[in-house]
Amino acid sequence: MKRKLRMGMIGGGKDAFIGAIHRIAANMDGLIELSCGALSIHPETAKISGEMLFLPKDRTYFSYEEMLKAESQLPADKRIDFVTIVTPNFAHFAPAMMALDLGFHVVVEKPMTFSLEEAKLLREKVKLTGKHLCLTHTYSGYPMVKQARALIKAQALGKIRKVWVEYPQGWLSKLSEREGNAQAAWRTDPKKSGKSGAMGDIGTHAAHLAEYISGLKITHLCADLNIMVEGRALDDDGNVLLKFDNGATGVLMASQVAAGEENALKIRIYGEKGGIEWAQQEPNTLLLKWLDAPTQILRAGSNYGQLLSTFATHNCRTPGGHPEGYLEAFGNIYRNFAQTLMAEMNGEQPTEEMLDFPSVDEGVRGMAFIDSVVASAHTTEKWTPFTA
Amino acid sequence: MKRKLRMGMIGGGKDAFIGAIHRIAANMDGLIELSCGALSIHPETAKISGEMLFLPKDRTYFSYEEMLKAESQLPADKRIDFVTIVTPNFAHFAPAMMALDLGFHVVVEKPMTFSLEEAKLLREKVKLTGKHLCLTHTYSGYPMVKQARALIKAQALGKIRKVWVEYPQGWLSKLSEREGNAQAAWRTDPKKSGKSGAMGDIGTHAAHLAEYISGLKITHLCADLNIMVEGRALDDDGNVLLKFDNGATGVLMASQVAAGEENALKIRIYGEKGGIEWAQQEPNTLLLKWLDAPTQILRAGSNYGQLLSTFATHNCRTPGGHPEGYLEAFGNIYRNFAQTLMAEMNGEQPTEEMLDFPSVDEGVRGMAFIDSVVASAHTTEKWTPFTA
Amino acid sequence: MKRKLRMGMIGGGKDAFIGAIHRIAANMDGLIELSCGALSIHPETAKISGEMLFLPKDRTYFSYEEMLKAESQLPADKRIDFVTIVTPNFAHFAPAMMALDLGFHVVVEKPMTFSLEEAKLLREKVKLTGKHLCLTHTYSGYPMVKQARALIKAQALGKIRKVWVEYPQGWLSKLSEREGNAQAAWRTDPKKSGKSGAMGDIGTHAAHLAEYISGLKITHLCADLNIMVEGRALDDDGNVLLKFDNGATGVLMASQVAAGEENALKIRIYGEKGGIEWAQQEPNTLLLKWLDAPTQILRAGSNYGQLLSTFATHNCRTPGGHPEGYLEAFGNIYRNFAQTLMAEMNGEQPTEEMLDFPSVDEGVRGMAFIDSVVASAHTTEKWTPFTA
Amino acid sequence: MKRKLRMGMIGGGKDAFIGAIHRIAANMDGLIELSCGALSIHPETAKISGEMLFLPKDRTYFSYEEMLKAESQLPADKRIDFVTIVTPNFAHFAPAMMALDLGFHVVVEKPMTFSLEEAKLLREKVKLTGKHLCLTHTYSGYPMVKQARALIKAQALGKIRKVWVEYPQGWLSKLSEREGNAQAAWRTDPKKSGKSGAMGDIGTHAAHLAEYISGLKITHLCADLNIMVEGRALDDDGNVLLKFDNGATGVLMASQVAAGEENALKIRIYGEKGGIEWAQQEPNTLLLKWLDAPTQILRAGSNYGQLLSTFATHNCRTPGGHPEGYLEAFGNIYRNFAQTLMAEMNGEQPTEEMLDFPSVDEGVRGMAFIDSVVASAHTTEKWTPFTA
Repeated sequence: MKRKLRMGMIGGGKDAFIGAIHRIAANMDGLIELSCGALSIHPETAKISGEMLFLPKDRTYFSYEEMLKAESQLPADKRIDFVTIVTPNFAHFAPAMMALDLGFHVVVEKPMTFSLEEAKLLREKVKLTGKHLCLTHTYSGYPMVKQARALIKAQALGKIRKVWVEYPQGWLSKLSEREGNAQAAWRTDPKKSGKSGAMGDIGTHAAHLAEYISGLKITHLCADLNIMVEGRALDDDGNVLLKFDNGATGVLMASQVAAGEENALKIRIYGEKGGIEWAQQEPNTLLLKWLDAPTQILRAGSNYGQLLSTFATHNCRTPGGHPEGYLEAFGNIYRNFAQTLMAEMNGEQPTEEMLDFPSVDEGVRGMAFIDSVVASAHTTEKWTPFTA
Repeated sequence: MKRKLRMGMIGGGKDAFIGAIHRIAANMDGLIELSCGALSIHPETAKISGEMLFLPKDRTYFSYEEMLKAESQLPADKRIDFVTIVTPNFAHFAPAMMALDLGFHVVVEKPMTFSLEEAKLLREKVKLTGKHLCLTHTYSGYPMVKQARALIKAQALGKIRKVWVEYPQGWLSKLSEREGNAQAAWRTDPKKSGKSGAMGDIGTHAAHLAEYISGLKITHLCADLNIMVEGRALDDDGNVLLKFDNGATGVLMASQVAAGEENALKIRIYGEKGGIEWAQQEPNTLLLKWLDAPTQILRAGSNYGQLLSTFATHNCRTPGGHPEGYLEAFGNIYRNFAQTLMAEMNGEQPTEEMLDFPSVDEGVRGMAFIDSVVASAHTTEKWTPFTA
Repeated sequence: MKRKLRMGMIGGGKDAFIGAIHRIAANMDGLIELSCGALSIHPETAKISGEMLFLPKDRTYFSYEEMLKAESQLPADKRIDFVTIVTPNFAHFAPAMMALDLGFHVVVEKPMTFSLEEAKLLREKVKLTGKHLCLTHTYSGYPMVKQARALIKAQALGKIRKVWVEYPQGWLSKLSEREGNAQAAWRTDPKKSGKSGAMGDIGTHAAHLAEYISGLKITHLCADLNIMVEGRALDDDGNVLLKFDNGATGVLMASQVAAGEENALKIRIYGEKGGIEWAQQEPNTLLLKWLDAPTQILRAGSNYGQLLSTFATHNCRTPGGHPEGYLEAFGNIYRNFAQTLMAEMNGEQPTEEMLDFPSVDEGVRGMAFIDSVVASAHTTEKWTPFTA
Repeated sequence: MKRKLRMGMIGGGKDAFIGAIHRIAANMDGLIELSCGALSIHPETAKISGEMLFLPKDRTYFSYEEMLKAESQLPADKRIDFVTIVTPNFAHFAPAMMALDLGFHVVVEKPMTFSLEEAKLLREKVKLTGKHLCLTHTYSGYPMVKQARALIKAQALGKIRKVWVEYPQGWLSKLSEREGNAQAAWRTDPKKSGKSGAMGDIGTHAAHLAEYISGLKITHLCADLNIMVEGRALDDDGNVLLKFDNGATGVLMASQVAAGEENALKIRIYGEKGGIEWAQQEPNTLLLKWLDAPTQILRAGSNYGQLLSTFATHNCRTPGGHPEGYLEAFGNIYRNFAQTLMAEMNGEQPTEEMLDFPSVDEGVRGMAFIDSVVASAHTTEKWTPFTA
């Protein structure tokens, strides 16, 4: 590979939160360049945003359709390799479908689509086109998350018995969507966000993390969804009991009204021999607890006698004690995605470590999680089956 | 009061875990002396245990009946003031009833009785006799637990929305009851422990703590109880969704198969304005989180400008940074109980701070919790009402 | 031993801080009873304090001389076994000498005496009388401190290279001694406290801990002592470079003007293979760091496969996760002292674990530390030899 | 500014540690592109490294002289704007001088030069040419470090009394320089590293941080430097007493033989009213301790009611709870440097927040620190003046 990959961005104009994050993540490792954008549906915003990002005028587009068509007609040595879609949930599906049809790989924010139906159609399209779709479940990009997964896969904890995942945030403790918070506005609007609020926004992250680390699948759930702030249309809080396919049980908590919390995603998993504990706000540490021995503190970047899994070390940039964070975890997803594309362009087989990014299948599963949780919340039956 | 209170102990012979704890708690503040005991149903153990505790031979009894009768006939200046009952669950009720009938106050380990029916009978007896029954829900004896309760009572957090209590232990991760662990043996035996294992042993602590700190009452619950270790007869793990009488929701988790955990009781409560977090393993710290301001670290013993509640300061013995622990929390229950008795003996009204120890009402509520959780675990209905 | 030990207390009347702490520590394990006291030099305070502690009137004394004489003439089955001296520093020596002369064992607060000369005389007296003198360097009573010492003794860390001990407190950040704080008043008064303030009060604890855990002896030091609060006569802050007898180096910091700190004694020791870290405010945890392996979290009370030293387990009362604190560490010193006396009274040899309490030798060394630090602070030479 | 800034890199070929870090830091925010490099003195390495970084062949140079000459002759719309120098210490001075002479701005790794003399010459050159020199004292790029500085500047803590900075690492606990560790090899070689080892490598970071946050200047120091690993030529451990220009005192510890430590830089500063505590391994948290109120936990990204300083918020990319780390701190130095250059190119005055990056003055001070510490280590006088 003699060049960087070329990326086009859909959404993510100035003032957008997640678009800026995606750009940092994509920039970080020098493998990707931002080549074009349809950054806003407001032409003036699109124009100014393009200038701020040093985009050429002729590749600052005013709609995703325009961008995808124009780019698909550029010569191979100029044309983008993939698009990244960072619009609100309801506007993921159409550009993703069109991009795949026109031969571009796709990176898309989670939740993948607005509905489970869309998700399944997208999955079909991916299979049909043979392109890659990468879903940015950021938290699975952390090296110590990958270390936890590797330990469990290697049976270090024995049979898994209990999965305990929690995701408290406090930022929707007031009716901020009525006070000019744009983020809050679309995320609490069923027309833009989908049929769930907190569970769609952060519950899906928690569910993905639980399945990713444990290697298990949720089979049944029992959900209690709540609207704690009066005047809101979607759940801002929820608690879910879980059953997994190996007999393990668990709990998933997701709340955006846990006043005083920032982004306190945390997971604990216990097996016959011990447990793991990982907290996103101190992500470079993985506690490894043992039934019969002292707890060990595993640390990102510290490869004590080759102790850490290659899946962890592949996703570290710095030696132990030089903390990497959220942006690096995000960057790992982009880097793995980019390395996969580059390997394939070079005619090589990507390694398992490169291929370790969330795909369309995880996207379908996330949408099924939302569907199942909402169904459970509306029934008086204790257990609702989870099917994707 | 010109003398220490005199205590008689039922159960708690040598090698018993909780009896030794009770004695330290009772000794600590120099307000109580151990005057007699029916320390074991095995005469030799009773005898040796009495010697080890420097009890006079004539007050080393061989059954609780013998002890209660003999003591009730001693002159007032020798007779014990109260008994403390530290036998396994099934053997709480009978000595407690007899002691009350004979005019003694009672301290009893939790869960208060073997069944809800016994608990209600005991409640009647307490009302009838006018004696005090003190239930050793240790964790409510910690000063920062009392501080949390006082803050919530004073509306510092606004309306409470979410209660999140967890109690993971790992010590029953193996079938230890078959390997000579006496503690494990009776606690996992339905004939000695009652209709629940982990929920009865530690779930009741968690439920009590949730209600004590929040000032709310659980109205409905949805329980998933599990036997994770094959060959065991009672639940060793459980997850419970909760609804409270003010509309708050919550989760209670209690597990004794969380391999690698010690005694990691922790509670978080969120209201409109902020939240509290308290963890038993670092009990001198209370995190006070705010929606609009930095988290504050409140510390036991550190009375910054009289900031701490009198309910907290009354239960501290040392200045900030000189950690008090589990034994002091236990001692606080004994001290408050003793101060109450002493005040009344002196013809004074005990203060609210003195009266702040768990009573027979909490005992009934704990037994009702066990009943409701077990009922919920056996139904396919999502919600089971909680009534005491 | 068929009875509790009998203790007489010198100092420690109502409102005294450390006297109350000693009583809790002595009460806790049911091995010692408070039999008499010369609790205050103010007769009224002595009287009231005796009543509050349920002392008989005839054993509530008004001076230590009176007490020691009277008690020495009581019959053996009533007479106290030992005295505990909890007066300000300047008033340790005389009662200790007299008690030893009259055949009593002695417990004394640190620093042991007012001057190094007194300390050496006391050491001679102890050797002469054959009685035990126990110095309450509380922090060496913590089980995880003993575990650290045992690990280093067993060469787990290899040769020790660096000792890093710090003791920041903030309570003397203002001129509290002029604002009615009695504690502050005598501790900052050279006539009552001795030739050093912070270094005498808490620096001696830090120095003792460093030598106790490392098993090394300080040979040279280079001290910078400061008076940070204007109007104060003694150092309230100091930093000291250290050299040890095996070639290790280190730093000792002690400050009482570290505003916002409580009692944050902490020690880190590094050897060729790894290091230990222990912090008094979370005393049940010992971090064991390895050059080539993940850090381990050792926990008091958790005897993973008999991993903990008998010196640690002997000093635990509760299982892991039931935190013990400052009072229990203090209680360990009393318990070991008491068990030593009891063993000897029974004609038995105390175990090494029982004998593991600070003695008159540590007291001399502490006074020598004060002398050396003050000498160093007054010279322009970099290194001052430390001799005891 | 209609374009990114163009950077040329000197040193930093494949396998070099710090060069890769600089590139990530420079890439992250999309303000800078790597345009050319003299990446290695080994031609083959230079060539391969250039390819891996997608550099054009004609701008992959084989010496810094070649690069600087060639680039200075390119037209303004192609020519680099600045160079970044990431060679070992001994090879900083010459390329920096030449770059300034040829009209380029300079970013340089610390310590700035090999000797204090070089540092002073470089300072003159910077003044003469009017170009910017940016020194990558990474740790001052963290937002909560800037918050601490802002608080102290605003007198929140009152007069500063004590500065306590420590920097333990363990990676040189063995003679790794003889075992093929290239990093270890040059850093322990006096010909490449300079007259100090650990003090030059990490002690300078600690000293800079102490002065940067406190706003004070060190005036005297008393150093104990040690070679703990036999066979090594430079100090691998040291402890230094400090005096500051306002009367405050302090301690600086730097060790690379603290076995088991990663990169545990930590600073605590105490004033009359309270103190701050910041630890690099959990960099998003700043503890703010108060003499008369509970400790507050300030968090990067969480702008509670505009509480955080603009110097902190300017250096955050993510909302609270989305941890930023070492690479972002590094990126902040590059971003501020880039924003300064861009503002000036646009004819605007950079803001104070932009100008907040370490300059040649801090570089001179760092070299003076090394000189003074080494001088102190060789004298028997307690205090050595610090002059820059």
